[in-house]
Amino acid sequence: MQTPHHRAGLRLPSDLPRGFSAATARVGIRQGEGDDLAVIAADHRCPAAAVFTKNRFAASPIRLSRRHLVSTGGHARAILINAGCANAATGDRGDRDAASSAACLAGELGCSIEEILVNSTGVIGRHLPIDAIHAGIPGLVAKASDAEVEAVAHAIMTTDSAPKAVERTIAAKDGGKIRIVGIAKGSGMIHPDMATMIGIVLTDARLPPDQLDRMLRRAIDKSFHRVSVDGDTSTNDSVFTMASGIAGDAADPSLLEASFDEVCLSLARMIVADGEGASRVLEVKVVNAASQIDAREVAETIGSSLLVRTAVAGGDPNWGRIIAALGRTEATFNPDRIRVEANLVPLFDRGSPIEDPTDAAAKAFSAERVLIGIDLAAGTATETYLTCDLTAEYVRINADYSS
Amino acid sequence: MQTPHHRAGLRLPSDLPRGFSAATARVGIRQGEGDDLAVIAADHRCPAAAVFTKNRFAASPIRLSRRHLVSTGGHARAILINAGCANAATGDRGDRDAASSAACLAGELGCSIEEILVNSTGVIGRHLPIDAIHAGIPGLVAKASDAEVEAVAHAIMTTDSAPKAVERTIAAKDGGKIRIVGIAKGSGMIHPDMATMIGIVLTDARLPPDQLDRMLRRAIDKSFHRVSVDGDTSTNDSVFTMASGIAGDAADPSLLEASFDEVCLSLARMIVADGEGASRVLEVKVVNAASQIDAREVAETIGSSLLVRTAVAGGDPNWGRIIAALGRTEATFNPDRIRVEANLVPLFDRGSPIEDPTDAAAKAFSAERVLIGIDLAAGTATETYLTCDLTAEYVRINADYSS
Repeated sequence: MQTPHHRAGLRLPSDLPRGFSAATARVGIRQGEGDDLAVIAADHRCPAAAVFTKNRFAASPIRLSRRHLVSTGGHARAILINAGCANAATGDRGDRDAASSAACLAGELGCSIEEILVNSTGVIGRHLPIDAIHAGIPGLVAKASDAEVEAVAHAIMTTDSAPKAVERTIAAKDGGKIRIVGIAKGSGMIHPDMATMIGIVLTDARLPPDQLDRMLRRAIDKSFHRVSVDGDTSTNDSVFTMASGIAGDAADPSLLEASFDEVCLSLARMIVADGEGASRVLEVKVVNAASQIDAREVAETIGSSLLVRTAVAGGDPNWGRIIAALGRTEATFNPDRIRVEANLVPLFDRGSPIEDPTDAAAKAFSAERVLIGIDLAAGTATETYLTCDLTAEYVRINADYSS
Repeated sequence: MQTPHHRAGLRLPSDLPRGFSAATARVGIRQGEGDDLAVIAADHRCPAAAVFTKNRFAASPIRLSRRHLVSTGGHARAILINAGCANAATGDRGDRDAASSAACLAGELGCSIEEILVNSTGVIGRHLPIDAIHAGIPGLVAKASDAEVEAVAHAIMTTDSAPKAVERTIAAKDGGKIRIVGIAKGSGMIHPDMATMIGIVLTDARLPPDQLDRMLRRAIDKSFHRVSVDGDTSTNDSVFTMASGIAGDAADPSLLEASFDEVCLSLARMIVADGEGASRVLEVKVVNAASQIDAREVAETIGSSLLVRTAVAGGDPNWGRIIAALGRTEATFNPDRIRVEANLVPLFDRGSPIEDPTDAAAKAFSAERVLIGIDLAAGTATETYLTCDLTAEYVRINADYSS
């Protein structure tokens, strides 16, 4: 099955920003084939930040990484990520496994254990094959290079159908170039406040830890916190960032921020387009809401409705389901004043359906990208929400994931 | 595909309680075959009550019925229901259509229009073929009899795979019998606070309007408000009740209430078991929660999780998804103290997974009924939530419903 992501083609960045190297290997954590362990290392300790899942069963590696960032005051040397096992809901043994993998990598790199960030993705409730990981780490460190973007993007995939990476380049103050490279994996359990997703954003710009942290949080709020695949959030969600500083300051700091935002938004879009089983991208845009909270509630309720998402899967212009989803929100609006459209085709206006003799609505719901517009006629707030359709393929993928 | 409902077999009540008659006909509202219009009439005006959807796009018939019950002080003569078209989001014309169908039935029965309750179920945003309904009503009234329970249950079906009706009989004070007969339809858009469902509960007991209303609300809170199929609520949800009074008072009023509750709970269970595409029933039981609100949030979050519901569809003991769903609630609990089990097989206890060498967990997730138990170890509140698994069949049904 071709996803929108496939159809759009894919050009991954060829190499990492200056000051970083990476390597991947197969150590046998996940079933099937392909590398399942990745190291992304800076040449030297550098500013780092991360945003982690709010799920209260945060996995052992998440809790360890959170502590490490606090104890280094926002610095790190390397990130260790495995696929195939989330090391979540694994109790004390899970904590020990996360710490011992970090210690092993720290030993190889000659840094402190606190300078290592770790994460895992895959099935919850299983233990890591920690001996295999220990055995694999020395080889990873030995062969790390700056050309491994695609290998890392592949090694962290779970049910993703394609690797996800993107880059932006801007001018540095000294006339050289600053690069920002982002790598991510989805693709189920995607929801605001993040889900089974991992993002890594590396830059060679010079940025102090607090500024890097603020930049990451702001970018995430505009990107990963506005997408959903299935409403579930996970135990292992995280976006890491590191800034090597080698390229110096940006000529235009606001352009650096904007580019950082763009990298995160591009990754978020890739995750939605490659949502489990997705055949179409669904974008819900709410305008003229009484408040930002209202706008968000409406966009999220419609974008999360199973009935709306299955209608989009079927290319079925069943817009009554949009109305029904809107009707169960608590947002301020007058049912007799609102307007609903799909890809600019009006469907419902001021309390009454628009007659559709030309079947324009059916065409709108069959497009590769379905933009549902809701005018609440109640204020000035606006919100956009990105998701994908809900297909039988989604169910097949998830009905048989762990076994 | 056999649903649990089919497997359990089905015996519908053979006739209505004393004082009621019904009839159905095909007037061409829905595509395909089968009757699509039903009248349920009392011999005389009698106490009646109803609970309607909270959706803010409540359909025209819902708004009309609500006004009628107010103006009669809780009395009615008949209920008119059609399938195939919800008459929702249809503007002023929808209001006029609902009123004119009620007026037509009132004329045939020789009662006031306010004594007629109406509802519609089917696609939202389309207009009723009102002339066909007017043409069909006289024949319905002429042929009404007390033996039409199954015909009514069939005529109000949309995507239900089987008709739903149940009865209870208790002793009347005078030594005779009091009967309670319930009829309902599901089967998508099912969620607490009701969804695309219609319930009708008829009894020949003598009950004043205010007592009938209280009894209905209490029964619904214990039944229809505890089930979900897909989280969507609809514009047309309603449960109607009428009490003819012919059988007099109950010998034991508390037994009447309990039987009324049972009828509602049985209908709710039938709706879940016949949820769109359902192959298994999923029951989430939360115990030892700090509060009722916590218990309900946890039960509803787990029972609504797409990933939990697809795991159950696949018979896949992926209990990590239960943990992940629990972890995104705001309920009070200590992750190191909780316990999770499925059909009494322990899965997770005090922060660590239970080793499962015998594959007992896989068996539990493959059962016809999967009972997930969550012990929050935080208090004494308990809540149960009923839903069904999420299958590829659900998506197929809903991807192509309106066309």
